[in-house]
Amino acid sequence: MLVPRGIRSRLQHLSQPTNHCRTFAASSEVGFTKAQTQLNALKKTPDNEAKLRMYALFKQATDGSCSKPKPAADDFIQTAKWDAWNGLGSMPKTDAKQEYINIVNALALAELHDNMSAVDAGEEMTNFQYLIYEVEGKAAKITLNRPNTKNSLNRELYFEVPAAFKKASEDPNITLVVLTGAGEYFSSGTDLNNLAHIPSRQQLKETCELGGSILQKYMESFIDFPKPLIAAVNGPAMGLAVTTLALCDVVYASDKATFMTPFTVLGLGPEGCSSHLFPKIMGYAKANEVLLFGKKLSAQEAKDCGLVTEVFPNRSFDEEVRHRVAQYSELPPQSMRSTKGIVRGWEKDLLKKVNKQECDNLVEFWQGKEFLEAAIKFVSKKK
Amino acid sequence: MLVPRGIRSRLQHLSQPTNHCRTFAASSEVGFTKAQTQLNALKKTPDNEAKLRMYALFKQATDGSCSKPKPAADDFIQTAKWDAWNGLGSMPKTDAKQEYINIVNALALAELHDNMSAVDAGEEMTNFQYLIYEVEGKAAKITLNRPNTKNSLNRELYFEVPAAFKKASEDPNITLVVLTGAGEYFSSGTDLNNLAHIPSRQQLKETCELGGSILQKYMESFIDFPKPLIAAVNGPAMGLAVTTLALCDVVYASDKATFMTPFTVLGLGPEGCSSHLFPKIMGYAKANEVLLFGKKLSAQEAKDCGLVTEVFPNRSFDEEVRHRVAQYSELPPQSMRSTKGIVRGWEKDLLKKVNKQECDNLVEFWQGKEFLEAAIKFVSKKK
Amino acid sequence: MLVPRGIRSRLQHLSQPTNHCRTFAASSEVGFTKAQTQLNALKKTPDNEAKLRMYALFKQATDGSCSKPKPAADDFIQTAKWDAWNGLGSMPKTDAKQEYINIVNALALAELHDNMSAVDAGEEMTNFQYLIYEVEGKAAKITLNRPNTKNSLNRELYFEVPAAFKKASEDPNITLVVLTGAGEYFSSGTDLNNLAHIPSRQQLKETCELGGSILQKYMESFIDFPKPLIAAVNGPAMGLAVTTLALCDVVYASDKATFMTPFTVLGLGPEGCSSHLFPKIMGYAKANEVLLFGKKLSAQEAKDCGLVTEVFPNRSFDEEVRHRVAQYSELPPQSMRSTKGIVRGWEKDLLKKVNKQECDNLVEFWQGKEFLEAAIKFVSKKK
Repeated sequence: MLVPRGIRSRLQHLSQPTNHCRTFAASSEVGFTKAQTQLNALKKTPDNEAKLRMYALFKQATDGSCSKPKPAADDFIQTAKWDAWNGLGSMPKTDAKQEYINIVNALALAELHDNMSAVDAGEEMTNFQYLIYEVEGKAAKITLNRPNTKNSLNRELYFEVPAAFKKASEDPNITLVVLTGAGEYFSSGTDLNNLAHIPSRQQLKETCELGGSILQKYMESFIDFPKPLIAAVNGPAMGLAVTTLALCDVVYASDKATFMTPFTVLGLGPEGCSSHLFPKIMGYAKANEVLLFGKKLSAQEAKDCGLVTEVFPNRSFDEEVRHRVAQYSELPPQSMRSTKGIVRGWEKDLLKKVNKQECDNLVEFWQGKEFLEAAIKFVSKKK
Repeated sequence: MLVPRGIRSRLQHLSQPTNHCRTFAASSEVGFTKAQTQLNALKKTPDNEAKLRMYALFKQATDGSCSKPKPAADDFIQTAKWDAWNGLGSMPKTDAKQEYINIVNALALAELHDNMSAVDAGEEMTNFQYLIYEVEGKAAKITLNRPNTKNSLNRELYFEVPAAFKKASEDPNITLVVLTGAGEYFSSGTDLNNLAHIPSRQQLKETCELGGSILQKYMESFIDFPKPLIAAVNGPAMGLAVTTLALCDVVYASDKATFMTPFTVLGLGPEGCSSHLFPKIMGYAKANEVLLFGKKLSAQEAKDCGLVTEVFPNRSFDEEVRHRVAQYSELPPQSMRSTKGIVRGWEKDLLKKVNKQECDNLVEFWQGKEFLEAAIKFVSKKK
Repeated sequence: MLVPRGIRSRLQHLSQPTNHCRTFAASSEVGFTKAQTQLNALKKTPDNEAKLRMYALFKQATDGSCSKPKPAADDFIQTAKWDAWNGLGSMPKTDAKQEYINIVNALALAELHDNMSAVDAGEEMTNFQYLIYEVEGKAAKITLNRPNTKNSLNRELYFEVPAAFKKASEDPNITLVVLTGAGEYFSSGTDLNNLAHIPSRQQLKETCELGGSILQKYMESFIDFPKPLIAAVNGPAMGLAVTTLALCDVVYASDKATFMTPFTVLGLGPEGCSSHLFPKIMGYAKANEVLLFGKKLSAQEAKDCGLVTEVFPNRSFDEEVRHRVAQYSELPPQSMRSTKGIVRGWEKDLLKKVNKQECDNLVEFWQGKEFLEAAIKFVSKKK
């Protein structure tokens, strides 16, 4: 699941009963620290005006009102900084923190918008930061590479995975693609640390809508991928990492793999076209236990219900997969591509419709009370 | 399967070869006795005119023409009765029986029409006669409660189950619903004792069409139910009790449960959207053995083909189900409801179309020769 | 898979790199021999003009230019033959062979067109050459009877099977149909010996398009068959013999049976509506391993994924099937027919669309480079 930022800060703005008061108290402080980290992670440096304002807010938030003497008139930089800080007058520390957070969020949103535009414009991504793209014979292997966070999908991976698919799709020497994870996990789905701090309701709405668009495009990169796509589920999978399996063509799983989609537990709903594909694949009785109640499946159970093609012992998993990939990647590529085209073509329009509807629903869920409460529980439990 | 009344009496009106003659002989007598039982089961008392006519017909049918002296003129009631009986003159006993049956059937039809109108008008049912409605925490439990007839669905249950769903749906404290059966059986489907006696072709047609409407609405109450619906199949299930499982969200089964839909054996066809949902869930090869040939499935087989979510040993069945229901009913309700909405939404229109077509087909089947012959076999075997 | 004729001869006409040269050398000779066999298999005798021309070409191809003395003027037949041969002058042997092949192919195409027209006109086939049509009680049993070629489908069977279905469909005493194979195999699908020799690109295109039409009609005879159709898979099945199983209603398999669809291996694509039905029945993860990668399934695997209804030990297979067929064929026929009608009706339009699309794709594949190369490999391996 793609989880938008700004969960805890919202608490300050929702007229809620007071049982969350303890969370409220800590909120602004944590948000301020997170915002600083987030600022450093931005790829584009803010312009000078924004930099000055943030410097001033940071000083106000940490040291309080400016009490330093005005610098020498010929030191333009120091003078500009002093002017900015001093200009905040007696603004309270909490207000300064809040505005600081607001600006960082706005910058992050702008960067996401830029990413989206680049994807829309078909710009090629040349470096992958969080995945490994390898070519083995005629197969491309895409490895989610954030083993320390169980290969969870951070915001960057929402752009890197589609870019890697694009690369493999356009390379005439690649006949099929393998998707796997580094280390012990396949992927834990969306990184819940994406939870950040958005002060205004307007910013929350905007962030959720942007999140919906990003998710929709991420899924479409699976729906539209034209070559055979083999998922090698080397370990536990959660959320989006499970639902996207239904859009892979063949799914091999280690016997250490598990499959879990805790949508309702988190006050959310299905994505990845699972609302249509899981019932189609498993039947309603199995699909609903997974989608409605978040039942965790073992690798064998996932195979029995048709989500997984075959299960191999963990120790020989890599070898079994490599063996098959080597063999299958030598099959006539046009024939494979055309076969995939006709097999998936019968419901491609429907899948796009399902994907859009699911994303639209999630945009609502993310702004809803149940997700808020679930996120608080999740964060509290983690501490 | 909903089986309309009037099977055997129809034999007198169909121009059939004589191999059913023995059945013909007994028919009128049995019909007459049944009609008396049916009359007592009516909830609305007939008006005085009808009562008098029935009194007269009953006397004529049992004692023959009136030979009693006319009562005293000031005894209005006795005089009215005597007039009615005496007015039948020399009407043969069999004719009197037949007209008696006709009237009872007409009254029963009228009562069913009233029930349908009440449902359409959204009237709430406050008392359940043949099911138990219980609340356990946030879950509502609906127990079919006719253990002596294997929880078969009589005409009343066709109205009580939808009414119970309505109640659970509208109660904001209820997050999910469990459907189960009292005693050793889950449900044997439609009560074949609904077989009654309809003399005229016109009445048969009318009854079948009404039966089709009732069945259609019964199924729609499953199709439209907005909260998670768990079937707890505690024992053998047949006919409609099997097909409706595909419209439940999760199906737990005792290892004592079996699943059988003897449609063609009875000269009938699929209902409960099974003509679409069974192939979707099981694939054609499994679905057709069940739908075309009435193959009985064990609980394990039903699980293997996706109709059942999980099978538990009979001795721990209640506990396993209770445990899960308690846990799942605590999940965020809006999220569950919305998830069910999107999961089922993709084919809700289709399901309504399928349901209508299946019911229309059944209306034809019920009036057909194959059902008639199968019903005769069924009744003969039972004696 | 229906494989059109003319693979190797095409090599002479495609501007290909020279790695296939060895195949080129042998091609014309083999084609010439095959053409003679094919000529003998034609049911309609060519007219006298064609006969004379073929005589001449044959002599020229084997003995070279005519050097015999002209026969006596009153021997009309010998004179006509001599004139024809002598008229070829110094035509090279290879050219004579090629034209001989061309004519045989044209005659074969004409005969296929006649067959198609006869089917379209609803003409009844009275004799079956390559299948056995038997009636056992109320069941018709159709046995593919080419055990020496693993019951592969030659061109005649593409017409005989639909004709047998028509016969069973129109016989009011037949309630269901069993399809099986003679000997150890169920059927190896299309007979790859259908590979023959077509010199011109125009003839190749025409043959492929005709092959597409024949295949489409063959599949439609399954799609439209109105009575229950049981496949008794007595042994290994391949290609079209596997995909058509999804259009049978119930599939019993011997534990000796295997299931394989090497579409992509042959540079081809799915047929028999498998591009839609296999994912529907098995889910994508299983279906794609079969359709994309040609994975062979055991009988048990085919049962687990829903393609097969039940598996019986090979020694008792016939008995188990016979027992069920005897029982099921006694069920009410109208009810079975109507049930099949509604069960299959929901996607009949879609299946026809899928079938057409698959056949159109195959017509392209048959003319493509990947199929050509795969066929060469296949033929080389066989030697």
